Amino acid sequence: RINGDRLWDSLMEMAKIGPGVAGGNNRQTLTDADGEGRHLFKKWCDDAGLTMGVDKMGTMFMTRPGTDPDALPVYVGSHLDTQPTGGKFDGVLGVLSALEVVRSMNDLGIKTKHPIVVTNWANEEGARFAPAMLASGVFAGVHTLDYAYDRKDPEGKTYGEELKRIGWQGDEEVGARKMHAYFEYHIEQGPILEAEDKQIGVVTHCQGLWWLEFTLTGREAHTGSTPMAMRVNAGLAMSRIMEMVQTVAMENQPGAVGGVGQVFFSPNSRNVLPGKVVFTVDIRTPDLAKLNAMRARIEKEAAVICEGLGVGCSVEAVGHFDPVTFDPVLVERVRKAAERLGYSHMNIISGAGHDACWAAKVAPATMVMCPCVGGLSHNEAEDISREWAAAGADVLFHAVLETAEI
Amino acid sequence: RINGDRLWDSLMEMAKIGPGVAGGNNRQTLTDADGEGRHLFKKWCDDAGLTMGVDKMGTMFMTRPGTDPDALPVYVGSHLDTQPTGGKFDGVLGVLSALEVVRSMNDLGIKTKHPIVVTNWANEEGARFAPAMLASGVFAGVHTLDYAYDRKDPEGKTYGEELKRIGWQGDEEVGARKMHAYFEYHIEQGPILEAEDKQIGVVTHCQGLWWLEFTLTGREAHTGSTPMAMRVNAGLAMSRIMEMVQTVAMENQPGAVGGVGQVFFSPNSRNVLPGKVVFTVDIRTPDLAKLNAMRARIEKEAAVICEGLGVGCSVEAVGHFDPVTFDPVLVERVRKAAERLGYSHMNIISGAGHDACWAAKVAPATMVMCPCVGGLSHNEAEDISREWAAAGADVLFHAVLETAEI
Ligand SMILES: NC(=O)NCCC(=O)O
Ligand SMILES: NC(=O)NCCC(=O)O
Repeated sequence: RINGDRLWDSLMEMAKIGPGVAGGNNRQTLTDADGEGRHLFKKWCDDAGLTMGVDKMGTMFMTRPGTDPDALPVYVGSHLDTQPTGGKFDGVLGVLSALEVVRSMNDLGIKTKHPIVVTNWANEEGARFAPAMLASGVFAGVHTLDYAYDRKDPEGKTYGEELKRIGWQGDEEVGARKMHAYFEYHIEQGPILEAEDKQIGVVTHCQGLWWLEFTLTGREAHTGSTPMAMRVNAGLAMSRIMEMVQTVAMENQPGAVGGVGQVFFSPNSRNVLPGKVVFTVDIRTPDLAKLNAMRARIEKEAAVICEGLGVGCSVEAVGHFDPVTFDPVLVERVRKAAERLGYSHMNIISGAGHDACWAAKVAPATMVMCPCVGGLSHNEAEDISREWAAAGADVLFHAVLETAEI
Repeated sequence: RINGDRLWDSLMEMAKIGPGVAGGNNRQTLTDADGEGRHLFKKWCDDAGLTMGVDKMGTMFMTRPGTDPDALPVYVGSHLDTQPTGGKFDGVLGVLSALEVVRSMNDLGIKTKHPIVVTNWANEEGARFAPAMLASGVFAGVHTLDYAYDRKDPEGKTYGEELKRIGWQGDEEVGARKMHAYFEYHIEQGPILEAEDKQIGVVTHCQGLWWLEFTLTGREAHTGSTPMAMRVNAGLAMSRIMEMVQTVAMENQPGAVGGVGQVFFSPNSRNVLPGKVVFTVDIRTPDLAKLNAMRARIEKEAAVICEGLGVGCSVEAVGHFDPVTFDPVLVERVRKAAERLGYSHMNIISGAGHDACWAAKVAPATMVMCPCVGGLSHNEAEDISREWAAAGADVLFHAVLETAEI
C-alpha cells in the first residue's frame, strides 16, 4: 500500500500555491502560480530521484529508470493546472499519486522492468486557453504545435508567449515519446460513486464532447428609445439558444448533458442592446451518433432562432473529442487490483474529458477514479476524504506495478 | 439663425477626443478622454466670454451674464460623456448647441435680462458608473453626494476617486444654483421623427425607467460530469428571465420596452456551470402605473423561475425615474419657435432618460429633439445630418431667447 498521509500532505502543500478565494485554487495554466507549482513538483521529483524531460508544450515527464534498457515506459499522470475557481484535487490528485507510487516503490526497494514516467500535462483545464487537454492533444497528433501556440486567453495573450514567459518551454518534440501504457487517477467529478457507496471507479469509457462557440451579431441600440419592433436583439437570441440546448439535452436522456459556462456581451452596458454576444455551448454523451446528432440539431435550431430575430449567427467548434473506449486489458488490471485490495468498486464512464482520452489514441490507456463529495468539482468547495484519496492511489500502485513488471 | 457650420465644426472637433473603433466615440465619464474633452469645451467657453463654475459632482456651469442682477439664469445643456461604443452626437449636440446659442448672441450683440448658463452635466450615460444622469440627480436632490461618490465602475474604482484623479472636482455645493428654466437639445435616439419626416421633436414627456440588477446564485459545477438532474443552473434561470422580460414588454404594447444590456457570468469558464450570474433588466414606459406593474410582475415571475431551478435570486434597483411631464409653457415656446422658423415638427415622448428629467424636478424644463438616422444611438454608427443639427439649434436659440428676455 502507498503512504496515504504523505500523499495527503503533498496535496495540501501544493494547494497553498495559487490559493482561491473560498478554500480552493486558482492556479490557471501558464500563470506565475502554475510556474511555482511546477517548481515545487520538480523539487519533489528530484528528491525521489527522477530525471526531468520537458516538451515544447511544457508538459513535464519525470522518469524513474527501468531495469530493461529496451522496455518502453509506463506513463502515470494528470495535470497540476486548475480552473479559475477550482478545487484542490482535480488533476493534482493524479499527478501527486503518480509521484506517491514512485515514492512507495523507492521505500520498498522495488525495481521495475519498464521505466515509470510521472507526467504533468500542460493546460488540461482549457479554462484560460481553449480547448481543454491541449498538450496531450498535441502529443496525440490531434492538434499541431502551431495551433496550440496560437490559442489566446481572454486578454489576447497566446499560449506560446505565456509558456516562454513562465520559463517552461522545453526542447523535446511533442509526441516523440512512445508509451508502453498510460494510467491516470482522477476524482470522479460526478455523483455516482458516492451515491453507490463505492470506493473505486473502474473507468471503461469517456463520453465525447463538442464545444460550440456561438457569435451572435445584433444591432447595438438604446434600450430605452428603441421600440421593441425595431430591435435586433442578440441577447434574446442567446437566451433562446440556451433554453433550446437544455431541451436537446433533456430529450437525449439518459446519458447526455448540455449547458453554457461562458458568456460575453458587447459592449456590456446597461442601456445598450448588445451588438455582439459570444458564448460557448458544451454538450457531451458517450454515444458518438447521439453526440453528433445533438450538435447538428443545436446548430440547426440556433439558426432558426436567430433568423426569426434577424440576428447573425456563426458557430465555431472550439473543442471536441469522440467518446473513448479504454484498453480492456488495463481496465481488467484496475478491477483486479481493487478486488485484491478489498476496495468496493464499479464500472464508470468518465463525464469529464481527461488527458487519458488523448493518450488512448497512441497507447493502451485507462483511468482510476475515486468519489468526490456531492459530485462537485470545478468549484472551490470540491472535496474528497483522505481515505478515498489513498484507496485510489493503492489501486493505481498495484495496476502500475503489474504493468511495469517487477 | 445660429451658425450651422460652426456648430458642425465644433461637433467634429470634439469627436476627435476619445475616438471609438468604428467612427464613434469612447469618452466615458471621468476617463482621461473626458478630462481632455472638458478642457477643449472650457477653452471654447473662455473664447466666448463665459465664466466657469464647477460643482462637487464635476458638472461645468459656464455663465454669460444677464442685464438684470436679480434675474435667475436660464440653463441650457446636456452632457459630453459617451457610451463605451457611443456616437458623436448623443449629449454632445446639446452642449455644443448651447454654446452655439451663446456664440450667436455674441455675434448679433444680443443682451438678455436673464444670464445664460451653458451646462455640461457629469456622468449622464451611467455606462461606467450606474445610475445614469447621476450629477443632475444629485443636483435635484434625488441622490446624496455620498451615494454618488461611492458608485463603482466594473474595476471597483469609485466616482469620488476618479473625479479627483482627472482634476474636475469643483467646490460648489451641488444643487445650490436656482434656475429660471432649463432647456436641453438632444438627438431623438429613436426612429419616430425620421419615419414621420419631421425636423423637430417637441418633447412633452419622458418615459419612466427601472434598472433591476439581478444576482442569481447557482452551484458551480462541471459541465460534463454533472448530470442534468443535479444542476443548479443560474445561467438557465437568466435565459428564462430574459425571455419573460421580453414577454412582459410585448404584452404591454404599445409604449413599453424591456431588455438586457449587461451580463456577468462567474467564473465564466467554458466547462463550469456559473455559480453566479449578474445582469441588469431595463424597463421603460411613459405610464407610471404600467411601469410599476411591469416591475412587480418581472420580480414575481423571476422568483418563480428561480425557485423552479433551485437558484437563489436577489434584485436591486440600480436606476429609476418616474415618467416626467415637461413644463407646458416652455413646451409651447419650443413649438412656436419651430413654427416661426418654418421647421416641420411633432410632439414626442423621450424614450431615453436625460438630465432634463431631473432638472424638471427643480425648475420649469423641456427639451428639443432632432431625428437620427435609423433611430440608432448607443452605437458608433449613430448619425445625423448637418441640417438636422442646425434646425434644432435654431429652435433652441429662439426658445432660449424668448425665455431669457431680450
Ligand atoms: N477533468 C476535467 O475537468 N477536464 C477538463 C476538460 C473537460 O471539460 O472535461
Ligand atoms: N440619453 C441617454 O442615452 N441617456 C442615458 C440614460 C438612459 O439610459 O436613458
